[in-house]
Amino acid sequence: MSSTATLQKSLTIDNINPHVKAARYAVRGELAVKSEEYRAQLDAGKKDLPFDTVISANIGNPQQLDQKPLTFFRQVASILENPCLLEKEDVLVSALGYEKDVIARARKLLKFVGSVGAYSASQGAMGIREEVAKFIERRDGHSADPSNIFLSNGASAGVNALLNIICATPSTGVLVPIPQYPLYTATLSVLNARCVPYYLDEHRQWGTNLDEIRAAYDTAQQNGTDTRAIVIINPGNPTGASLEVQDIENVLRFAAEKKIVVMADEVYQTNVFKGQFYSFKKVLRDLQQKEPGTFDNLELASLHSVSKGMIGECGHRGGYYEMVGFDEKVKAEVYKYVSIQLCPPVIGQCFVEMMVNPPKEGEESYPLYKKEYDGIFKGLYERAMALYEAFKKMEGVECQSPAGSMYLFPSITIPPKAIEAAKQQNKQPDEFYALRMLDATGVCTVPGSGFGQKDGSWHFRTTFLAPGTEWTGRLVEFHNGFMKEFS
Amino acid sequence: MSSTATLQKSLTIDNINPHVKAARYAVRGELAVKSEEYRAQLDAGKKDLPFDTVISANIGNPQQLDQKPLTFFRQVASILENPCLLEKEDVLVSALGYEKDVIARARKLLKFVGSVGAYSASQGAMGIREEVAKFIERRDGHSADPSNIFLSNGASAGVNALLNIICATPSTGVLVPIPQYPLYTATLSVLNARCVPYYLDEHRQWGTNLDEIRAAYDTAQQNGTDTRAIVIINPGNPTGASLEVQDIENVLRFAAEKKIVVMADEVYQTNVFKGQFYSFKKVLRDLQQKEPGTFDNLELASLHSVSKGMIGECGHRGGYYEMVGFDEKVKAEVYKYVSIQLCPPVIGQCFVEMMVNPPKEGEESYPLYKKEYDGIFKGLYERAMALYEAFKKMEGVECQSPAGSMYLFPSITIPPKAIEAAKQQNKQPDEFYALRMLDATGVCTVPGSGFGQKDGSWHFRTTFLAPGTEWTGRLVEFHNGFMKEFS
Repeated sequence: MSSTATLQKSLTIDNINPHVKAARYAVRGELAVKSEEYRAQLDAGKKDLPFDTVISANIGNPQQLDQKPLTFFRQVASILENPCLLEKEDVLVSALGYEKDVIARARKLLKFVGSVGAYSASQGAMGIREEVAKFIERRDGHSADPSNIFLSNGASAGVNALLNIICATPSTGVLVPIPQYPLYTATLSVLNARCVPYYLDEHRQWGTNLDEIRAAYDTAQQNGTDTRAIVIINPGNPTGASLEVQDIENVLRFAAEKKIVVMADEVYQTNVFKGQFYSFKKVLRDLQQKEPGTFDNLELASLHSVSKGMIGECGHRGGYYEMVGFDEKVKAEVYKYVSIQLCPPVIGQCFVEMMVNPPKEGEESYPLYKKEYDGIFKGLYERAMALYEAFKKMEGVECQSPAGSMYLFPSITIPPKAIEAAKQQNKQPDEFYALRMLDATGVCTVPGSGFGQKDGSWHFRTTFLAPGTEWTGRLVEFHNGFMKEFS
Repeated sequence: MSSTATLQKSLTIDNINPHVKAARYAVRGELAVKSEEYRAQLDAGKKDLPFDTVISANIGNPQQLDQKPLTFFRQVASILENPCLLEKEDVLVSALGYEKDVIARARKLLKFVGSVGAYSASQGAMGIREEVAKFIERRDGHSADPSNIFLSNGASAGVNALLNIICATPSTGVLVPIPQYPLYTATLSVLNARCVPYYLDEHRQWGTNLDEIRAAYDTAQQNGTDTRAIVIINPGNPTGASLEVQDIENVLRFAAEKKIVVMADEVYQTNVFKGQFYSFKKVLRDLQQKEPGTFDNLELASLHSVSKGMIGECGHRGGYYEMVGFDEKVKAEVYKYVSIQLCPPVIGQCFVEMMVNPPKEGEESYPLYKKEYDGIFKGLYERAMALYEAFKKMEGVECQSPAGSMYLFPSITIPPKAIEAAKQQNKQPDEFYALRMLDATGVCTVPGSGFGQKDGSWHFRTTFLAPGTEWTGRLVEFHNGFMKEFS
C-alpha cells in the first residue's frame, strides 16, 4: 500500500461542515479525554502518578461516581426489560423482595408502551405524556396539556429540536446566559446561528440581570441580529444559582415585550438547597391570572430530565419538554423534526414516568424510596458545603454559597506568571490551571472558558458528586502549590 | 384573555427554519397519524369501522407487531437494570430459570459500563466497541479497529452525525438511491444540502445500476453540485433488494474514482432470504488485497442497528457505525459532534454487544436463542411469501420476489380516474391509494412517493412483520374494489 502521507481523503478538516468545526464543547474536551487516559493507566496498574483515583468532577454523571440508583426505579425497569418475570410474581415478591407497587407500576408502564423494544410514537408514549402533564399540574397548580409534552432523548435532544426550529437564518440570534452549559453555544454554532450572550451577575448569586439582558438584546439588534429566543438555566449550570420569582417575572415580561420564545432549562429543579424552585410555567400562569392579556402571545418551552436530581439516570437518556403557547403548525414541525429520528429510548420514557410519579406515602416502596432520596440529597448538600469550605481556604478563590444544581463555579485569581505560562502553551489561563489540577490531583474539572465568563475573570466548574470529601483536600494542596509556583 | 385570532406568535410556520419545513418524512406522516386515530377508536370500543384491527405495516417495528423479544437479551437486560439481582444468583437460576451465561454476560457488561444509568464515553463504552470490532473481524475476515467504531442512538443518529460532518455548503451533494428510506432526504433537507438522486433498477431486483449512478453524478456536477458521498442501503429499504458482490465492487470503484465517501446502511444485514449478505467493508478489503493501492483513499462508513434483524429492539435505540479510512481530524470532529448530545443510551449499547455476541453453540442459552431466532426468521419469510403471492393476484400490481430486509415494494398501476380523484384532493395518486387502503382495511402502508420513484410509476411499501396472513386477504379485496371503483 502507498504511504498514508500521499493519500488524499475526500473529507479533510478544511472541507467538512465549518459550523460543526466551529462548535466548542469543553465538558467532553481535552481534559476529559486526558482524565480517561489517567483512569486507564491506574486500572492497568500504573503506580507513578501523584494520585490513586481519578475524580470525574467535570460532568454531572452521578452513577459513574458511585451514586446508587433508586431501587424502585431499577426494580420496575428490570421487569420492563423482562416481562416474563410477571409470570413469577411470587418469586419477585417472596424471594427477591419486590414490593407490590413495583409490580403494579411495571404492568402500568407495559400497558403504556407495549414493549420497551418497540418504537413508540415519535412524541413519546401517550400514557406517559399524560402522567407528565398531571405532574406539571400538581407542581404548578395550573393545567397542562399532554399534547404539549414531547418526550425526548435526554433534555439535550429537546434543546436540539427547539433550536433547529427557531434558527431560521444566519442572523437568527438566541440570548444565552454567560456562563452557560455549552450545549447551547455548540448547537447554535452547528446551526450557523448567533449566540447573543448576556452575563449573569456573579455577585448577586449568579442571578439574571434585566439591564444586562436588555443591553445584550439591543446590541444584537444594532448588529442586525434577529433575536428570537432567550435561554434560562434554572437552577444554574455551571453557576449553581437558583432564581427568585422576581427574576423569572422580569425575564417573562421582557420576552413578552420583545416577542421572543423563552427556553427554560429546568433539569436541576429538584437540586435546590436554598429557597425553593419556581418553574417558569407556574410564574407565567400566575402572571397571566394577575394581568389578563399581557402574556397571551408568549411561547415557553421548559425542559426536564431523568439525568439529574436524585435520580441521576443519565445513561437512560430520558427527558421531556413542554411547549406552551406555540402555534399548532410550529408544533407540527417539531413533531416532524423529531420523527426523523423515530422516537426517544422507550425505557428512558419509562424513567420519565417514574420521575414524575415516584412512590407516594402509603405505597409499599415509599419508605425505602424516601430514605434513598433523602440520603442522596443530604450527601450532595454535605459535599457542596465541604467543597465550599475548601474554596474558602484557597488564596484568590471566591465562590458563591451553594444554592442549587450539582455544581460550584468558583472564580480564581490566576497570577500573571501563570497567565504567561498558559500563553506559551497556547491555552487559556483557566484551562492551564485545570490541566495542572488534573495532572497533580486526578480531579477533572472544566475551565470557566468552556462556559464563557467576563473578560479577565477565570473560573472552573466542579460537580459535588464524587463520594467522600478527601479529594477536596487534594484541591487545596494543589492550589496552594500552584500559587506558590507562579508567585 | 384576548381571542387567539389576535395573538401574534414569535414563531410561525412562515418564519421558522425553512430547511426543517422543507423536510419530508412520510414513514411517520399523515397515514401513520390517521392509523393511530383508528387504533384509538377501536380501543375505545368503536364498532362501525370496516375492520377490527389496525395493522401498522408502515414501519419496521417488530415488537409492536407481537414479535417476541429474544429471551437471552431481555434476561441480561433485566439484570443490567437491577444489578442487585446478582446478589441472589440462586433465585435467578433455580426459581427464574436464568442460565449461567445470562448471569456471566450481565457481569461482563456491567464491567464495561459501570451502571446503565451513567453516561458512557461519547463514542460508546470501549469494552463494547472492542466486541463490535471483533464481530466485524469474524464476519468479514479482515481486521477492525475499535477506535473506528462509534456506538449510536440507533443507526439514524449515525446517519445524522455523518451527514452533519459531510454537508459543508448548500451546494454539497450526496448520492441517494431512489427509492430510499427518507431519513436521508429529510436530513439533507434539514442541513440545506442537495440530494443527488440515482434510480435503482426495479426490473433487476432493485439493484444498483452504475450507469445510473454515473449519470446522476455528472448531471449534479453540471448543476454546480459538489457531490461528496454516496448512500447505499443494502439490503434495501424500501425495496427489499440484496446486492451482489459485483454491484458493491462497482460502487466502491466509482467512489474511489470520484473520491467520494461511501455510506453503507447495512441495518438489514441478517434479513436476507436470497443469496447472502456481503458487507461493503469486506468487499472493500478484498479489493484492496487484490489491487493494492487503488482503494487506499476510500472512506467507508457502515451502519448497523439492534432495531432490525431478528432482534427488533427498536425502542432501545442501539446502533453503531464503523468509520474506515477517514482522516483522524475528521473523526475527531465526529467525536465532538456526538459528544454535544453526551452519549447513546447505555442499555442500547449493551444490546449492541449482545447482537454482535449472541449465545454460541455449547453455551447454556444457545438452544433457546437458536429456536427463537430461527422461528422469527422463518415467520418473516413465510409472511413475505404470503404477501408476495397475494400481490400476484392483484390486477396491475407487480412485485419483485422477496430477497431481504423487512419490506416489499410493489408497483401499482393506478387507473386514470383514480389519478384524477387524487388530484382533486391535492394528493399523489399512491398516497390517495394508500389512504383508501387504510380506510378500508386498517392496514397502514407508506406510499411510494414517500421514498421517491420514477416519474409516472406508483408504489407502496409494506412490512411483512404483522402476525398472521389474514390481512393479506383484506388487501386483495380492497385492491379489487378500488380497481372496480375507478375503472
